Amino acid sequence: MLQWLRKYRRSQLPGDISAGIVVAMMMIPQGMAYALVAGLPPVTGIYASILPPIVYALFGSSMTQSVGPMAIVSLMTGAVVGPLAPAGSGLYQVLAAQLALISGLVLLLCGLLRMGFVANFFSRPVMSGFTVGSAIVIALGQVKPLLGADFPHYHLPSAIMGVGAVLLLVLARSHFARLLRAAGLKPSTADTASRLAPMLVVMLGTALVPLLGLEAMGVRTTGAVPSGLPQLNVAMSPTHWRPLLQPGLLIGFVVFLISMSAAQSLALKRNEKLSSNQELVGLGAANVASMVSGGFPVTGSMSRSAVNFAAGANTPLASLITAVLLAVALIAPTGWLALLPLPVLAATIIVAVLGMLEVDTLRTAWRYDRSDALAWFATCAGVLAFGVEAGVLVGVALSMGTLIWRASRPHIAVLGRIAGSEHFRNIERYPAETRPDMLVLRVDANLFFGNVEAVTERIEDELRSHPTARNLVLVLSAVNSIDTTALFALKELNTSLARRSIGLHLAEVKGPVMDRLKQSELLHTLNGKVFLSTAIACDHLQGVQHG
Amino acid sequence: MLQWLRKYRRSQLPGDISAGIVVAMMMIPQGMAYALVAGLPPVTGIYASILPPIVYALFGSSMTQSVGPMAIVSLMTGAVVGPLAPAGSGLYQVLAAQLALISGLVLLLCGLLRMGFVANFFSRPVMSGFTVGSAIVIALGQVKPLLGADFPHYHLPSAIMGVGAVLLLVLARSHFARLLRAAGLKPSTADTASRLAPMLVVMLGTALVPLLGLEAMGVRTTGAVPSGLPQLNVAMSPTHWRPLLQPGLLIGFVVFLISMSAAQSLALKRNEKLSSNQELVGLGAANVASMVSGGFPVTGSMSRSAVNFAAGANTPLASLITAVLLAVALIAPTGWLALLPLPVLAATIIVAVLGMLEVDTLRTAWRYDRSDALAWFATCAGVLAFGVEAGVLVGVALSMGTLIWRASRPHIAVLGRIAGSEHFRNIERYPAETRPDMLVLRVDANLFFGNVEAVTERIEDELRSHPTARNLVLVLSAVNSIDTTALFALKELNTSLARRSIGLHLAEVKGPVMDRLKQSELLHTLNGKVFLSTAIACDHLQGVQHG
Repeated sequence: MLQWLRKYRRSQLPGDISAGIVVAMMMIPQGMAYALVAGLPPVTGIYASILPPIVYALFGSSMTQSVGPMAIVSLMTGAVVGPLAPAGSGLYQVLAAQLALISGLVLLLCGLLRMGFVANFFSRPVMSGFTVGSAIVIALGQVKPLLGADFPHYHLPSAIMGVGAVLLLVLARSHFARLLRAAGLKPSTADTASRLAPMLVVMLGTALVPLLGLEAMGVRTTGAVPSGLPQLNVAMSPTHWRPLLQPGLLIGFVVFLISMSAAQSLALKRNEKLSSNQELVGLGAANVASMVSGGFPVTGSMSRSAVNFAAGANTPLASLITAVLLAVALIAPTGWLALLPLPVLAATIIVAVLGMLEVDTLRTAWRYDRSDALAWFATCAGVLAFGVEAGVLVGVALSMGTLIWRASRPHIAVLGRIAGSEHFRNIERYPAETRPDMLVLRVDANLFFGNVEAVTERIEDELRSHPTARNLVLVLSAVNSIDTTALFALKELNTSLARRSIGLHLAEVKGPVMDRLKQSELLHTLNGKVFLSTAIACDHLQGVQHG
Repeated sequence: MLQWLRKYRRSQLPGDISAGIVVAMMMIPQGMAYALVAGLPPVTGIYASILPPIVYALFGSSMTQSVGPMAIVSLMTGAVVGPLAPAGSGLYQVLAAQLALISGLVLLLCGLLRMGFVANFFSRPVMSGFTVGSAIVIALGQVKPLLGADFPHYHLPSAIMGVGAVLLLVLARSHFARLLRAAGLKPSTADTASRLAPMLVVMLGTALVPLLGLEAMGVRTTGAVPSGLPQLNVAMSPTHWRPLLQPGLLIGFVVFLISMSAAQSLALKRNEKLSSNQELVGLGAANVASMVSGGFPVTGSMSRSAVNFAAGANTPLASLITAVLLAVALIAPTGWLALLPLPVLAATIIVAVLGMLEVDTLRTAWRYDRSDALAWFATCAGVLAFGVEAGVLVGVALSMGTLIWRASRPHIAVLGRIAGSEHFRNIERYPAETRPDMLVLRVDANLFFGNVEAVTERIEDELRSHPTARNLVLVLSAVNSIDTTALFALKELNTSLARRSIGLHLAEVKGPVMDRLKQSELLHTLNGKVFLSTAIACDHLQGVQHG
């Protein structure tokens, strides 16, 4: 905690300051936009961008993570709170904050229980499919504010502003950095400055509202933004703990997944060590802080953190500077914020989520492992068909399903002796010799509940096709662990083989596996022996009859 | 399908007939009792024991499985339908049948999609904890009918009958078989006959009702049981598809798990091959048949199937005989069934579920693998605290959680060369030599999304403690597969190492893994080389600088 402050070097300051300023300028439109995605007043997005990053700086593990509102988490918040409270009501705000509290407590608890491994419940293809599906849902949700009316209708002035802003932002994305470089800026500075395009477009749009009298034409704006810092919020709805519990858990999980993937990619670039348990604590505390300041669930965002890093952030001081600047913006007159045109904000959201539509994972998976590509499609389709909340569950189910499905097809080789040697090899790949009274099988997988049935079945199949075998040797050279379920299966196999007068022998058992087995009854009741090597087993068993 | 009939031998007939009769006599009280557990009229339990086993005989895969009502599945049925319909109402029966239909369709679909591997989602300790928790819930639910009043109150005549029946059944369990053997029966015949104790106790109790005028004293009985075969039922409640969908899915899963574990233990005894996909189809069809005959979800029961097997069943003909006998019992006058005293039925349920309270799994797990023992406790507690339905989800979550947690701690060894040899071994276990400019790591696990973060972290840790290493050799001799997530991680590791001028090399890549990798970009962009053996890699890299 705060290790970075103790080791702070003066040379880190300029980078932190510039990153702090850039991210603050990015945060104002982004925070307001993502509050709208969550169905909340725009100012709550700024509230959620002040205290949470400060708290994260105290407890989190990543040096350059930028914690605050994020599109997917806001989408989930809206999906959860929407059916429970009327849009725009005080209850809606209370429930959104309460959701942040629940997610925060879940994250804190997981952190204290050192459950960082839960990030491993999602495979990358599933995460990618989930992100793309969510991005599509978010973009579709912004079509109405973009056009000022339900598609295919449109409100012409709104639609012109919205679509114009989209085009401007897309152009800025591809050409702004190049223009700035051509204007003499350093490439890195130009890249960073180009990230401010959304802020510039929003300012331009805001300036046009009074200039062209757009409000009178019916272009909707954010409306009065209350000045001043967020009040301490402790309002809660006691009757809603139960309905918010499961969604809070899911949101906590997604918050962690998104933040970890952002933090990991940054840690890799900075060659830093990341602690997933520390990250859980940091995110948990940040979400509790978001609740206290009347915000909603927050997380570390990949795109914003990348900007933070690119703009020179060396330590969480950058985030502290961002927070201070946002607080100043709220204390200063906020009248101009009231004129932000909603079609332009919608445009910034749409262009931001376009960046989430990555297909590299899908392309690679399609070529490399078709089942992973199918998991991608299924998760994406799950989000589109059943919503983002169910999508998380679909994603976990698919990751686990793929895992168990793969585990249920372990590689098992029948071994034979390479003539005149001590070596035993897969008879399908090598010209190896087998003996009719002996069956030697090598299992190339850890034995656990997910594959134990398949292993047992395969053994029985091989015994059926080797009816003269009197001894079965299981070569465990590739087995690093045997769980309780597999232990029972081995015991049952042993009993069944004993009844059929077939000896069950183990060979090449690894040290840690042997240590474990010694604590079970299997070795005492084993109907055969344990051998150091396959060769010793076969030499010994040659001609030995069992039963 | 019906293969057994084509190969039927005359010598199998006597066994099938005796088993058919024994199971039918067992089924009458059991079916009625489990209907009560599900909150349904007792006769529906007999309905659910006629058509389902006939249909299973046509489509199922096990020779000696006895399909029908089962305690845990009935408990789940009651837990699902209870909150949706008033007890005793027509809607309750409709929903119970609809639940059987949904479970049946889910099972059929899984069978057609060849998803038999879903049985592997539960580890044995989790299944055992789930069973014990459910048994406790079922037994507690029978205390009220046993005593004739809410505990600690009791209705004396009911309590005497109920507790008396429990004592009689417990004594019968331990002594009846011995008595029969002492009376000259063969041990196996005595064991089988002793399984009829519940039937005898129920008959005794039924006889006492008119003899002692127990009804007038307030002892409750099953009441009029309609005579005749079940009517064709197609009644459904369209508004209840949605609320029944998820429970139907869970029940289908539990039906499959329970039936598979019964069928597996029998297949092992009979040295038979079982097809999990065929089992899904058989159970699915049986549940659809249960719906059609106005029943409720059914499954293969371990205890009943064991009796079927022990009583001599050789083929599904035994189940067909059982079904015919039950149909005959319904066509014959059923007046006597109306006098079955409920306290005695409750006693049979309690004693039946006592047999499910096995602690062998827990004891073994406690000694062998403490985390599996904790999963047992957590699942059992989950069922007791949140109910049997949530218990299934807790069980799956724990099985998967244990799996991912274990995966997140892969074994990785730093290798050194055994002086003067070609062999490389774990430096912690052998006196092996390392070189300061080279780091050789062997990963003893398949690389996949569950451990990729841990592997990457460990590699970075080792690089930090070997700051002079210019080459990293990953020995993949124990890696049988690399999934898409791990492929991306290797790519990112490669990029990161290239930036730090450290060569990334692979050694001892297995054939199938190499085939896969050739379809990716990794090998083209690899910052180092792929070597056949670790020794070749080290000889080659000695003194080679990268970057």
